[in-house]
Amino acid sequence: MGMLLDSIQKANDIKKIPPEYYEKLAGEIRQFLVEKISENGGHLGSNLGTVELTMALHLSLDLPNDEIIWDVGHQSYTHKILTGRKAGFDTLRKFGGMSGFPKRKESACDCFDTGHSSTSISAGVGLAKARDLLGQKRTVVSVIGDGALTGGMAYEALNNAAKLNTNFIIVLNDNNMSISENVGGLSQYLNDIRTSDGYLNLRDKVYYSINDSMPKVVTGIRRAKNSLKQLMIPGMYFEDLGITYLGPVDGHNISAMMRAFHDAKRINKAVIVHVCTKKGRGYVPAERHPARFHGAAPFDIATGLPKQAHTKANYTDIFSTVMIKLAARDSRLVAITAAMADGVGLKRFRNIYPDRFFDVGIAEQHAVTFAAGLAAGGLVPVVAIYSSFLQRAYDQILHDVCLQNLHVIFAVDRAGLVGADGETHQGIFDLSYLSSIPGMTVLAPKNKWEFSDMMKFADAWQGPIAVRYPRGEAYDGLQEMRAPVEYGKAEVLFEESGILLLAVGTMVKTALEVRRALKEAGYACSLVNARFVRPFDTGLLERMAGTHRLFVTMEENVLSGGFGEHVQAWGAELEHAPRIMHVAIPDEYVEHGSVERLYQEEGLDAASVTERVLAEAGRIFTE
Amino acid sequence: MGMLLDSIQKANDIKKIPPEYYEKLAGEIRQFLVEKISENGGHLGSNLGTVELTMALHLSLDLPNDEIIWDVGHQSYTHKILTGRKAGFDTLRKFGGMSGFPKRKESACDCFDTGHSSTSISAGVGLAKARDLLGQKRTVVSVIGDGALTGGMAYEALNNAAKLNTNFIIVLNDNNMSISENVGGLSQYLNDIRTSDGYLNLRDKVYYSINDSMPKVVTGIRRAKNSLKQLMIPGMYFEDLGITYLGPVDGHNISAMMRAFHDAKRINKAVIVHVCTKKGRGYVPAERHPARFHGAAPFDIATGLPKQAHTKANYTDIFSTVMIKLAARDSRLVAITAAMADGVGLKRFRNIYPDRFFDVGIAEQHAVTFAAGLAAGGLVPVVAIYSSFLQRAYDQILHDVCLQNLHVIFAVDRAGLVGADGETHQGIFDLSYLSSIPGMTVLAPKNKWEFSDMMKFADAWQGPIAVRYPRGEAYDGLQEMRAPVEYGKAEVLFEESGILLLAVGTMVKTALEVRRALKEAGYACSLVNARFVRPFDTGLLERMAGTHRLFVTMEENVLSGGFGEHVQAWGAELEHAPRIMHVAIPDEYVEHGSVERLYQEEGLDAASVTERVLAEAGRIFTE
Repeated sequence: MGMLLDSIQKANDIKKIPPEYYEKLAGEIRQFLVEKISENGGHLGSNLGTVELTMALHLSLDLPNDEIIWDVGHQSYTHKILTGRKAGFDTLRKFGGMSGFPKRKESACDCFDTGHSSTSISAGVGLAKARDLLGQKRTVVSVIGDGALTGGMAYEALNNAAKLNTNFIIVLNDNNMSISENVGGLSQYLNDIRTSDGYLNLRDKVYYSINDSMPKVVTGIRRAKNSLKQLMIPGMYFEDLGITYLGPVDGHNISAMMRAFHDAKRINKAVIVHVCTKKGRGYVPAERHPARFHGAAPFDIATGLPKQAHTKANYTDIFSTVMIKLAARDSRLVAITAAMADGVGLKRFRNIYPDRFFDVGIAEQHAVTFAAGLAAGGLVPVVAIYSSFLQRAYDQILHDVCLQNLHVIFAVDRAGLVGADGETHQGIFDLSYLSSIPGMTVLAPKNKWEFSDMMKFADAWQGPIAVRYPRGEAYDGLQEMRAPVEYGKAEVLFEESGILLLAVGTMVKTALEVRRALKEAGYACSLVNARFVRPFDTGLLERMAGTHRLFVTMEENVLSGGFGEHVQAWGAELEHAPRIMHVAIPDEYVEHGSVERLYQEEGLDAASVTERVLAEAGRIFTE
Repeated sequence: MGMLLDSIQKANDIKKIPPEYYEKLAGEIRQFLVEKISENGGHLGSNLGTVELTMALHLSLDLPNDEIIWDVGHQSYTHKILTGRKAGFDTLRKFGGMSGFPKRKESACDCFDTGHSSTSISAGVGLAKARDLLGQKRTVVSVIGDGALTGGMAYEALNNAAKLNTNFIIVLNDNNMSISENVGGLSQYLNDIRTSDGYLNLRDKVYYSINDSMPKVVTGIRRAKNSLKQLMIPGMYFEDLGITYLGPVDGHNISAMMRAFHDAKRINKAVIVHVCTKKGRGYVPAERHPARFHGAAPFDIATGLPKQAHTKANYTDIFSTVMIKLAARDSRLVAITAAMADGVGLKRFRNIYPDRFFDVGIAEQHAVTFAAGLAAGGLVPVVAIYSSFLQRAYDQILHDVCLQNLHVIFAVDRAGLVGADGETHQGIFDLSYLSSIPGMTVLAPKNKWEFSDMMKFADAWQGPIAVRYPRGEAYDGLQEMRAPVEYGKAEVLFEESGILLLAVGTMVKTALEVRRALKEAGYACSLVNARFVRPFDTGLLERMAGTHRLFVTMEENVLSGGFGEHVQAWGAELEHAPRIMHVAIPDEYVEHGSVERLYQEEGLDAASVTERVLAEAGRIFTE
């Protein structure tokens, strides 16, 4: 017999496969996923864990009429396979290729784009309400992990889902993990359910206690709060909130899940189906190292080891090291992560200083205001969050930290273009949203040594301060340029006259190349490392304005509200302003692809910048 | 006997008052509050509801060593009275006077600034952790309303508080209200507790079931989940989350609350004390009309009616009317509020179109992504949220609405300076945070008719679109200027040459005055109503750049990332750019005071603008 997978060319094709072959199909999907992701990289553990769940959903639903919202969305690979996008895995996460996340523009079977955590229940309540008001018939299902359930907006949505008098299914995909181990009270509660005698028995006997009459029973129980039966039903937490609870169900048993979904569809209110899965299921290295295989670089299938050894330090490594040093000499220093101890490089810190390390779950809002509380109490918290996720805490940064001028250090990792994760994960807005907040100080380092220096500066500073740094290898050039970091002061790397390249962070490296090309073309050219985006070094710039007729601001951020616009606004106040041109990301979302390719697409590579500057210089200096 | 209140000059003075006089003191405080707020305006209902609660806290704690974080903070008036700030009520919410919210800079007894909802538990967990790590001894108490508990970050914080192995007290001040009626599953749950037989009996017998041995019992119960006792203890929802629950307690019975706080202090983990209060307690009009007396303008004590009749329509009134009209002709239109049906003017809409109206609770994040779901499902949602509260949903606007180019209409009320509520409530960042988001369209109306026209335009538009409008009376001048709203097009009100005033929204009215003064001083002066902040009318501006040497952008937003900087960046690309100067709010937080006074302080009043423009014009036109 050939590959079952080959018979699946579009949505609902899975329904033609006889049930006795489901296990074989699941095996083929797993093999396909491991092969493709080992070649191209991608999210592995979450996808291996949800193979049967996705199959059961597709067998129970009618896509694309019915709607599945995948929370975060990195677990949608099997969904992509089952909706005719198997071929897309050859270009997965590559420029112009298939996205690693659900995309409405990619398929009619993707009803809602996701990427950040904890949005799916809100979107699902909206889709369910729209369905009812427009008199349509369809099933709406939100699939959310237990990790994503630590995000506050999921709770806001549950609180509202409770009011629905119409069917809406929430599949709680419980693998007892965020990217790292899950945290918090609810996690403990779910663990209690999973490990209770009831569930252990149920796992084998498969969901027998919840038969067709169950919904009525549950409804009855909700009313008869004094009934003893309450004690035997797990999930009262959700019932208390007003959401019907079914489960727990073995998330690797397709027929059990199909029965649960069948029951769930008959309930005219919001219903949670609690499904227990194992992250990385079926591929031993991924089962053993779930954090490493959350988002994996290409790896060797036999060993599970990365194909390309991680040789040069990246900025996250530098952060990891400097935090240990800072903590040793400043006992007030504490570290906070929002479920990304691995990702942001705080594992070593956690091991050495467990009492001073806080993983708050996928809860960026709480992370920031919790930090504000720590700072108000006399500590120096370092909040390490990826640039695009920190967007969640914009109000908390503005309202809880900066308004009180509290000394909170923001380590803004993955700032700039991140590459393969695409639109939802590019860190290209932080210079805009951070630098418009009164009282905030924003820095970006040119290389690995400067990053360390800036973290030390941030520790010694008083008040809110953010250091933004990119994903990937840390630049290790310009080691000799290491003037002490001074508040609000830029660093002059080369001073000539005529053209001034004014570069932020990563763009210093690019500016070096641009300067070389400009020099070859016969132009004098200065290069300044901005260091501070807010407040930037107006004193230096004023002096430079006397000797330079063209300023070129360079930043890895959208133009709107970024560094360049601030410099421009300042320049307009000068008596004799230089011409100020901007190198920045155009005001659009940036899709997935390698960072190098994206630089070219966005005009941020040295060749593109050189071309633009030469054209402008030609105009100005021949006037 | 004289006034007891006079004997309270500083923190802890209340402890000198014999218990038999507590009721008299509470009465005096209520009378004081009603008198002062009836004169100056302020938050009444929440403060009348928490008189005894605040007294019980002050009797049980040692301020300022112990720390109370007041969620939202508008209920902190009694706390201010009891910490020596009674005299401050004569300048309450006035410029340079006492704030209506807790402020660290105002008193050592205010340990954490608040203003926006649902932050207090996060801050409290931070303060408790800092206390422990620094080896200090104090009690940390967060006081949070049941309304604020609908905000997701409160849940994120509860989930983390559950991990504490140290004392931290959360007082759940349950009045069954947000500003309007409370909503959602948790609200229903709390209502079940309040109205259960247990509580009804307890109310009179006052907390007798929770004696000194209670903590141990509760801990025991938590472990022995099969115990029957679980059924008799309300609050298992919180216990399931891992938070010890005590209550419910009558929030107007001081000795009952003191006993509860005494017990709570002895528990070495996070503990919720569930206190039931009545909003507006003791002043009949406030008890009967809680929404009206949430934030009250000066009123007549005898009748409860506002001293100044609301004669001219404000923008919220216009919004209210236009929404009814739009809904009548577009059946896809639905409306969403985050617990502010009254505040944003959606009460009439709710009454006429109950099925198309959604109050999601204090849950701005969910509001926006829920709207994205509705839009993805084919409806046209209007999300009406105050400018400063919409900051909470920055990521959801960027990631869930704009990235998918969904047709969601944002009605951004209270944009610009709001006055008496001060720093936390000024809506002076929305032009920055909204206009840096790719795909977003941002408008601001010059007067009431244009606001209607813009809402109609927004309904007919495809894609994300925000209309921002201010608090207070709607401008009713320039009725004759009513050119149709066209995408991205500004409106030329007066075209001459020389100076161009380019005004956004409210600033058009101011610009009229400025123009008059400039004309009197002998300058030709054009006036353009920007209408669109993003995308703004570059075609028109390019034409104007040929005939004007000075552009003056005018906006009620911070300079950084606002309209002016965008215009400046555009202007820099012109061959012969005019001088572009900016009228905007300096990049600082703006304290409380009347809007008129704040305009002067920030340099946004006609006289200040005229002076600046004249100075600049003098320089430019004599060159």
